[in-house]
Amino acid sequence: MLSHFKNDAHKAWQSSSGLIIRQNEPKNLETPFSDVDSFLTPTELFYIRSHFPVPTIDPGTYQLHIHGAVRNPFYMNYQELRDMPSETRVAVLECAGNSRVFLVPQVDGAQWELGAVGNAEWTGVPLAALLERAGIEGDGFEIVLEGADRGTPKEPPVPPVAISYARSLPRNKAIQQEVLIAYQMNGRDLSPDHGYPVRAIVPGHYGMASVKWLTQIQVVREPFQGYWQTSDYAYWDYLDGRPVRSALGEIKLKSEIARPRVYETLAGNQVCTVFGSAWAGETEVTEIAVSTDGGRSWGEAEFLDPVQRHAWRRWKFDWLTPKQPGKYTLLARAKDAKGGVQPDHHDQNYGSYVITHPLPIEVFVENPAFAVT
Amino acid sequence: MLSHFKNDAHKAWQSSSGLIIRQNEPKNLETPFSDVDSFLTPTELFYIRSHFPVPTIDPGTYQLHIHGAVRNPFYMNYQELRDMPSETRVAVLECAGNSRVFLVPQVDGAQWELGAVGNAEWTGVPLAALLERAGIEGDGFEIVLEGADRGTPKEPPVPPVAISYARSLPRNKAIQQEVLIAYQMNGRDLSPDHGYPVRAIVPGHYGMASVKWLTQIQVVREPFQGYWQTSDYAYWDYLDGRPVRSALGEIKLKSEIARPRVYETLAGNQVCTVFGSAWAGETEVTEIAVSTDGGRSWGEAEFLDPVQRHAWRRWKFDWLTPKQPGKYTLLARAKDAKGGVQPDHHDQNYGSYVITHPLPIEVFVENPAFAVT
Repeated sequence: MLSHFKNDAHKAWQSSSGLIIRQNEPKNLETPFSDVDSFLTPTELFYIRSHFPVPTIDPGTYQLHIHGAVRNPFYMNYQELRDMPSETRVAVLECAGNSRVFLVPQVDGAQWELGAVGNAEWTGVPLAALLERAGIEGDGFEIVLEGADRGTPKEPPVPPVAISYARSLPRNKAIQQEVLIAYQMNGRDLSPDHGYPVRAIVPGHYGMASVKWLTQIQVVREPFQGYWQTSDYAYWDYLDGRPVRSALGEIKLKSEIARPRVYETLAGNQVCTVFGSAWAGETEVTEIAVSTDGGRSWGEAEFLDPVQRHAWRRWKFDWLTPKQPGKYTLLARAKDAKGGVQPDHHDQNYGSYVITHPLPIEVFVENPAFAVT
Repeated sequence: MLSHFKNDAHKAWQSSSGLIIRQNEPKNLETPFSDVDSFLTPTELFYIRSHFPVPTIDPGTYQLHIHGAVRNPFYMNYQELRDMPSETRVAVLECAGNSRVFLVPQVDGAQWELGAVGNAEWTGVPLAALLERAGIEGDGFEIVLEGADRGTPKEPPVPPVAISYARSLPRNKAIQQEVLIAYQMNGRDLSPDHGYPVRAIVPGHYGMASVKWLTQIQVVREPFQGYWQTSDYAYWDYLDGRPVRSALGEIKLKSEIARPRVYETLAGNQVCTVFGSAWAGETEVTEIAVSTDGGRSWGEAEFLDPVQRHAWRRWKFDWLTPKQPGKYTLLARAKDAKGGVQPDHHDQNYGSYVITHPLPIEVFVENPAFAVT
C-alpha cells in the first residue's frame, strides 16, 4: 500500500491503473473517472495536461529565479528549496477544459470527458515565504509564474514566436498560505509529467495556474497580458455592458458522477449506488442533489468525505432502478456554502472552458429478467 | 449470465460496463479496451460509431427495398426478413479510424484510442439469399447499401445537400455467404445505436461497410462514387504511378495490447501478463510477437482463441518486468496466414485511417520496493 493512501477512509483504487489518451503528443491523458474510489487520486491515475513536450530538468543545476518588483531578487536551487519549512496540503486540480466533450456542437481542444480532475496531496514551500524573502515592492501588482516548457501554441490569436508557458496570479491570491511551490505529490517527488522537479500549486484555481517545471517567479507592476492570460484560458467578462477579455482563475462549483458510467447497463428494480465527487474554488460544497430522470425530480446525496477547503468531497446516492426498461439520464448538482448552485446550462462566455452545468450521464435499465447477475 | 457469453472459454467481463465518450452528439463511444476479457464483446461494451442522429424506425412499417439492376425488385418487411432462414456468425467490426489518437501530429476526426473495435455474434439473412431472389442482372457491378441515417457530412469535399449514409460493396464480396442482413447482435435484437431494426454486417471489412438502419439494397452497373466512397473512408492507391482515390474495404492485419494500459505503473521484477487481441480481414492471424523494449527484441505470445475466420484471437504474453525502474514501451505485431505482417509505420496514403502499425503502449516500472501490493 502506498503511503499516499494513508488518509483514505475507503479502500484503495483497483490495481488496474492507466490513463485514457486524449492527445498523444504532447501527452494529454485522462483519469478513468469511473475508477474513482479513494479520497486521494493516486499519482498513477492523475490526469496529465501538457502544452508542449516535457522539459528535462537536472535538479543538480536547477535554479528558481525570484525577481521583478522586489527589493531582494534571488536565485534558489533545488536543495535550498527543499531545506525550507514545507507544508503538505490536499487540493483538487481541474483542467479548465474538463468535460469539454459534453459540449454540443463539438468545440476544438482535447475532448476531455470527466477525468481531467484529481485530488492529490502536495508538499512544498508556501509561495508567500519566497515572496516575503524577496520583499514585494508596494506597487507589485501580480506574480508571473513561468515554466521551462516552451513552444508555439495553437489557439488563435497565436504569437509569431515560440514562448514559455507563463501565467500570472493576483497578488492577494499569491500571498495566501495555501499556494505552494511544490516538489512532492502524494508523498513522492514529482514525476516528469507532473512538473519535476518543481511546480506551483494554486489550490482553488483551475489547473492552468499551477505552472509545472517552474523556473521563474516574477513580480510585475501591471496586469500580465500573456498568451495564456488573454488568448487561451480566458473568457468574456462584462464591464459597463461591454465584453472584456479576462483570465480564468477560480474553480467553479461542480459535481460529477463517477459511477454508473455513460451507457452502462443496469438491472431494473435493484438498488444501484450512484457515486461521484464534487468540488469548488474558494468555498465549500455543502449539498448534492441527484436526478435519475433527466432533471424532473431530485434527491439528496450523502457525503463520504468531510468539508476540507480546496479538496473534493465524494458522495453517494442509492437509486432504486425502475422496473420499466429504457434509457435514463442521471444528473448531479452541487450547492456551496455561499448559496451558489451549478448553472443549468453552459455559459457561452466561457467558450470551451468552465463546463460546470450538470453533465447528463445516460444509462440503460434492463428488464429485471434479462439482468446480468 | 447473458446467453452471448455461452461461447466464452474465459470469465465474463467485469460487471462495470460503460463507454468512453469521443464525441457526444452524434454518439461516438469507445469500448474501454483494457476491459477486454471475453471472446465476444458484450453489446453494452461494444463501440458506437454514428455519423448522424440515430433514426427512429418502427419495425411495424419498416420496408427493405431491393432494387436496381435486378430482374425482380421487391420490398420486404421486418417479419418477412425474420422468417427467412438465418445464419449466426462471429465477426470483428473495426472502425477504419480506430487508433487515430496515436497519429502524430494529431489529425482531425474522433480521437479513437484502442477501443473502436469489437467482436460480436450477428444473426441475420445472408445478403446472397436476397440477391438471389432479386436476380442480379449480368452487368450488375456493385451493391449499394443505404441507411436511414441522414445529414450533411463534415470532411471536405462536402456535398451541398443532406445525404443518406450509403456504401457500396463489390459484387464478389456481396454474394459471399458471410455477408448478413442482420437483426440480432449477441443473441438479442439490435439496439437503436447498433442499427435497429436491420443492418448489414460485412465480415472482413472495416465497420463503415456494415451499414446500420438499412433501408435500401440497390444493384448498380457502375462503380458507386458516393461521399463515403470517395471523400471519406477512401485512400490514395496508385495506378501506373498516379494516385487514384479508392474506397477502403478489407480490414488490415492488426494486433492491440489491452493490458497493461497506457501509463499503467507496474511492479519491477514480477511477472506481468500482457493481454491483447488480433484480427485480420480475409485471412487468419497466425502469430503474435510482443516487444517490451520499444521494438529492440521480440518474444512470441500465446493464443487464447483458435482460428475462426473473421473473428479476433485473444493472446497473452508473460513479461518478467525489469528490476530497473523507468518507462518501457510495449508493442505487439501480428503475422497472418498469407505471410503478411503489420507495417512498422503508418502509411500516409491512408490519411487518418487504417492505423495498423504496432501501437506503442508506454508503461512505468517501479522499483520493486515501492510496488503497490
